[in-house]
Amino acid sequence: MERDIQALIAEMTLEEKAGMCSGLDFWRLKGVERLGIPSIMVTDGPHGLRKQQGGTDHLGIFESVPATCFPSAAGMASSWDRELIGKVGEALGEECQTEDIAVLLGPGANIKRSPLCGRNFEYFSEDPYLSSEIAASHINGVQSQGVGTSLKHFAVNNQEHRRMGVDAVVDERTLREIYLASFEGAVRKAQPWTVMSAYNKVNGTYASENPYLLTDILKDEWGHEGLVVTDWGANNNRVDGLAAGQELEMPSSGGVNDRKIVAAVRNGQLSEEVLDRVVERILNLIFKSVDNKKPEADYDRAEHHALARKVAGETMVLLKNEQNLLPLQQNRKLAVIGAFAQKPRYQGGGSSHIKPTQIDVPFEEIQKLAGDAASVAYAQGYHADRDDTDESLLEQAVEAAKAADAAIIFAGLPDRYESEGYDRKHLRMPANQNQLIEAVAAVQSNVVVVLLNGSPVEMPWVGQAGAVLEAYLGGQAVGGAIADVLLGIVNPSGKLAETFPVKLSDNPSFLFFPGEGNRVEYREGIFVGYRYYDTKQVKPLFPFGHGLSYTSFAYSGLLLSRKEMMDTDTLEVQVTVRNTGDRAGKEIVQLYVRDVESTVMRPAKELKGFAKVNLQPGETTTVTLTLDKRSFAYYNVQIKDWHVESGQYEILIARSSEDIALRDTLNVESTVKVKTTVDRSTLLADLMSDPDRAPVVQGLIQSFQTGMGASLDSDSMKDAMGEGMGEMFAEMMKYMPLRAMVSFSQGAFTDEMLDGLLAQLNQL
Amino acid sequence: MERDIQALIAEMTLEEKAGMCSGLDFWRLKGVERLGIPSIMVTDGPHGLRKQQGGTDHLGIFESVPATCFPSAAGMASSWDRELIGKVGEALGEECQTEDIAVLLGPGANIKRSPLCGRNFEYFSEDPYLSSEIAASHINGVQSQGVGTSLKHFAVNNQEHRRMGVDAVVDERTLREIYLASFEGAVRKAQPWTVMSAYNKVNGTYASENPYLLTDILKDEWGHEGLVVTDWGANNNRVDGLAAGQELEMPSSGGVNDRKIVAAVRNGQLSEEVLDRVVERILNLIFKSVDNKKPEADYDRAEHHALARKVAGETMVLLKNEQNLLPLQQNRKLAVIGAFAQKPRYQGGGSSHIKPTQIDVPFEEIQKLAGDAASVAYAQGYHADRDDTDESLLEQAVEAAKAADAAIIFAGLPDRYESEGYDRKHLRMPANQNQLIEAVAAVQSNVVVVLLNGSPVEMPWVGQAGAVLEAYLGGQAVGGAIADVLLGIVNPSGKLAETFPVKLSDNPSFLFFPGEGNRVEYREGIFVGYRYYDTKQVKPLFPFGHGLSYTSFAYSGLLLSRKEMMDTDTLEVQVTVRNTGDRAGKEIVQLYVRDVESTVMRPAKELKGFAKVNLQPGETTTVTLTLDKRSFAYYNVQIKDWHVESGQYEILIARSSEDIALRDTLNVESTVKVKTTVDRSTLLADLMSDPDRAPVVQGLIQSFQTGMGASLDSDSMKDAMGEGMGEMFAEMMKYMPLRAMVSFSQGAFTDEMLDGLLAQLNQL
Repeated sequence: MERDIQALIAEMTLEEKAGMCSGLDFWRLKGVERLGIPSIMVTDGPHGLRKQQGGTDHLGIFESVPATCFPSAAGMASSWDRELIGKVGEALGEECQTEDIAVLLGPGANIKRSPLCGRNFEYFSEDPYLSSEIAASHINGVQSQGVGTSLKHFAVNNQEHRRMGVDAVVDERTLREIYLASFEGAVRKAQPWTVMSAYNKVNGTYASENPYLLTDILKDEWGHEGLVVTDWGANNNRVDGLAAGQELEMPSSGGVNDRKIVAAVRNGQLSEEVLDRVVERILNLIFKSVDNKKPEADYDRAEHHALARKVAGETMVLLKNEQNLLPLQQNRKLAVIGAFAQKPRYQGGGSSHIKPTQIDVPFEEIQKLAGDAASVAYAQGYHADRDDTDESLLEQAVEAAKAADAAIIFAGLPDRYESEGYDRKHLRMPANQNQLIEAVAAVQSNVVVVLLNGSPVEMPWVGQAGAVLEAYLGGQAVGGAIADVLLGIVNPSGKLAETFPVKLSDNPSFLFFPGEGNRVEYREGIFVGYRYYDTKQVKPLFPFGHGLSYTSFAYSGLLLSRKEMMDTDTLEVQVTVRNTGDRAGKEIVQLYVRDVESTVMRPAKELKGFAKVNLQPGETTTVTLTLDKRSFAYYNVQIKDWHVESGQYEILIARSSEDIALRDTLNVESTVKVKTTVDRSTLLADLMSDPDRAPVVQGLIQSFQTGMGASLDSDSMKDAMGEGMGEMFAEMMKYMPLRAMVSFSQGAFTDEMLDGLLAQLNQL
Repeated sequence: MERDIQALIAEMTLEEKAGMCSGLDFWRLKGVERLGIPSIMVTDGPHGLRKQQGGTDHLGIFESVPATCFPSAAGMASSWDRELIGKVGEALGEECQTEDIAVLLGPGANIKRSPLCGRNFEYFSEDPYLSSEIAASHINGVQSQGVGTSLKHFAVNNQEHRRMGVDAVVDERTLREIYLASFEGAVRKAQPWTVMSAYNKVNGTYASENPYLLTDILKDEWGHEGLVVTDWGANNNRVDGLAAGQELEMPSSGGVNDRKIVAAVRNGQLSEEVLDRVVERILNLIFKSVDNKKPEADYDRAEHHALARKVAGETMVLLKNEQNLLPLQQNRKLAVIGAFAQKPRYQGGGSSHIKPTQIDVPFEEIQKLAGDAASVAYAQGYHADRDDTDESLLEQAVEAAKAADAAIIFAGLPDRYESEGYDRKHLRMPANQNQLIEAVAAVQSNVVVVLLNGSPVEMPWVGQAGAVLEAYLGGQAVGGAIADVLLGIVNPSGKLAETFPVKLSDNPSFLFFPGEGNRVEYREGIFVGYRYYDTKQVKPLFPFGHGLSYTSFAYSGLLLSRKEMMDTDTLEVQVTVRNTGDRAGKEIVQLYVRDVESTVMRPAKELKGFAKVNLQPGETTTVTLTLDKRSFAYYNVQIKDWHVESGQYEILIARSSEDIALRDTLNVESTVKVKTTVDRSTLLADLMSDPDRAPVVQGLIQSFQTGMGASLDSDSMKDAMGEGMGEMFAEMMKYMPLRAMVSFSQGAFTDEMLDGLLAQLNQL
């Protein structure tokens, strides 16, 4: 419905407009009854909705209505399946319409800087490209149903420790290439109706009142059309926030901040035009929601549960599978071990915690699919709420394992180990679980470990387990999905969206996480995740992009559409994939780009494309991936833009970040000249590498060398100062500042002559 | 002789005073004949003097007078022997007196940030305490002879790449704890007559015109009484330099800068009082030199050569010695292999390169000591000036090795691999040397590798060598010293003053060295050398402090003089060491301190004391080491001072940074209260941890919790938001800013009340 929003704003009083800028209560925006502006409701996400039915108190700890619990983001990203994530988004949108929710608060696109971050289960990846692609699919899915999303937490909210106080100090290039890029792709591709600003500061200014982030980048550069809402309680100075591009404070401030806005307009501190533009964005959201409302909406609980099971199956990552231990054959004696097999951990704690419509019990689902249910035994093995070993439970588990053909151990992290609100201090699983796995492996050679956890764990027992299946926090249908994978109904196809390190100290942020006091420095810079492990040559436990299948795939026919391109061109990369096994299966084809040589630090390689293909046994398909300037560029802080250095780039087609199947090289030419200002301290090398300026200084250098009177490469000199002197003087010459010419000329080349030279060089 | 320097200055013209601020020529300061101020001469060091006898041209490439070439700094530091280094200093001082040199330009106290730095052979260590102790001994030794030193290159000159242009960006704490600490100890303990400012910028300002470094820290804080001289050609803006505390520009500027100084005083830009103080320091240096002149000085070349041999023997580090392969027995058939055995690399290239009085040839020295000289064969093995393998040389070496009882391979880095002026790009030895070692090891199980190099190399062959002796660049007597160690005349006692990494990428600066353009960021911060390897748990090839002996030592009886101390107290640490082998030998006892728990990042441990003891077989001695506040402190950037956090500290007595022999714990209490300003954004946790402020906020928190109306630990809440919620809310509460109290109270706690609270808290 077309509305004249401007006319509406013109009719509002200053107090009404100020009032629109904060919530009515914990979950609702304000309306203005006399003007027909309704109040709309938002609710927590992102992998299901948490609509509270009782009091909507500010800590949100009351009962919520049941909703389908899909796998958490960590798992979803492991599917690398844009279409599938879109379907989950659609289902979430349907549930929101059913529950009269205007905006679902999610997805989260923060980068997994450290595996310790308590909220990592709610985030997608350590890679900004993968994260933004998955986020965009999620947003498009939800919004296709006329329901808004809230891309969060913008930005650089990569830890829970001191999240309301910490200042994330990140250099500009890292901010652009890693932490913002994850949001940028999602905003540009999917236009989330809202973006949620984070609690923390970024480089000294709260994210919620950061004009650089909210206005310059999000609105002006990326063209975000929706509004920015604070994380709940993240508002600091309301007026600064408004001026910075923060439209909506949530939850209510009890009128306190509305009055401050009114006062600020009255005393001229805040222009009423700014307030009007803020209100315009808020009204746009409200009416977009109203216009897309489906009053009769309902959804099929069973169907959504089935979707949750299918999705969970696609997200699991088979980390290890020696001698094809998996899939398990039917009608064998199985020992299912571990408390999680009866009460699975399937979602994380905090604001994303929802009340599921039903829960699959892994043990029961295995029984259903295993053939002879009677042959499937269960032993608890450990207490999930304790870390110490219960010897009698351990013994029962060992006995059960001895009596079986294979042991399936359900392990991972209990709720208290990871949650919104606090970070882990280590990557260990509870000691009783590690002990259990080692004890069982001592008596049973066929051990399958199924992990239920939101982020990486150390696996001291990995050498003793024949198979390891990472099920993440797989949602309410995780039990069925695990059974599907273990028994071969589903061929696993997930790949890691994050690196699993051998030990915590291998992580790039280790020395500087979570910072000192209220300051955390992102000193590892762009070297996050595999960018670090690759470049530093630190061997991970399981690399980014890794995941096994019950079938095998062969790669061939890598073809680049051109071998020479300008940075304004696009490149098509073709590759052929064949299922060479005897089962249908899905493969995730990964494309990484490597800058062969660069004047700036660059990671060994970066993910710039991927596709998931489904192949029958023997079937072949050709995948085409398209690269553009951004695929080769780094963020150049000098020109404040993405920049491609002219030169060679390698295209790597890979099964994982460690397993390169095919590679080829092309040449990319920059269309941008980067010019620096020349001053007295400019080094000769920097002038010599500039084709316009080199001829001017060449003459100067020659006359200097002649003036030295002695051959730099003479034997007498080598004798006097060592064999390496030729190179030493060449290097000294290269890296000499222009001002040295004045000193060394002993007055022949004057300061005035140098000034003239500088003027000349700066015009080139 | 007493002189009235002030009266002398009063007699000088402005032009004469300005003239004193730069050199007469490449090596001499100016004098003023009419006032009886003589010209004095300085010359390059530090491990011998390079006095040029011909033209003293500005590149200094002419012939110099012969002088004793002692081991370079990298080796000297490996002796960990303060007394021995002092003796070397004395010998250098004698040679300077003989050659009429007023100041010997050295030692270098820059920290080995990266093993790639081309000038590392001239520096002592990756550890500031060890580096400063050795530097102080060197300075005291030289200056005891009435000859000045120049502690260089001040500061943060840790790479040769772009050394005249690069800006070293280092955080304040790292600057203090690592890069400046290495100079600080030497200045405080030994008062070098001069300090040489570096070429590079430090945090944006050239070291040569950096008032923070030269005046605030060096002169005012550390009390340096001497003068600051530029590195040759390091002057940028002469007037800024003078104002910043840079007294002397070297070499001559041809009068250009003298005129600028005069103009600056005339136009009021520079106060004449500043210039007078500068001239005072210069005159003090000149007359101190004159007064200490020993016109009849001479030295015994043979005696100094013998000292050089003794010192070289003490500096060598036995890295590996399987099955007591070393020492070699006499009268066995030995194959001495490698071009370096005939022409050893014994010093580095660049300004420190001197003309030795004689050179020991390793092969000949081994022949002399091996018993039957005829049984010692030689094969060249490789060409030192090439990287590719000469197959016939290789074959001869293999044949020689086959025919012998043991093969001794001389390998390492040729001159062209490391020198002043440029950095290495990798840590590899020439390919032909690596190939030689592997080929020889394939036919001979007793392989000893003797390394001649200025800094660490990768050793892909280390598993095939039975023994590895690191001889560094051991000076002109290195050949004899190697023979002494190989044949057991000398029992090796050196220990590494730097970590040898397995591979280059393990080094902490790897990702950010040597920077981009003219900017290098020291992002690893305080985690330099073993501080990084220890804390990040990266296994080195050979750790800091490692070195083997032909005998063995037992540690016992660790005794702390107190178990509780204030940070103003001192602690005496006693430990007993016994020679449990059957040879006399020296052991380097290392003391590391570990802060058990800290609110700031701290390395796993830090070297805070060491002693070298000489023990006969069966002999026992007790070592006492004294610790003070600084031994436990970190540099607190908030209070701009060294600070000891109250709590437990561990005292580690160690054979190397990886091999801890004994440990004990004590409690240190701080006498300093660190107070922060409280504002709206201060987190509750930070108030609760302050005993004065906690009671005030305690009440506030309780009323807030009561106001929540629901028990945070209730089952219904866990059901709603997950098991971890108790902890989540506790953490949320702890890390909530004060301003949140206003929001959450819904108006009950007003902004005005908060302002009152802030005022109250800030008085506590």
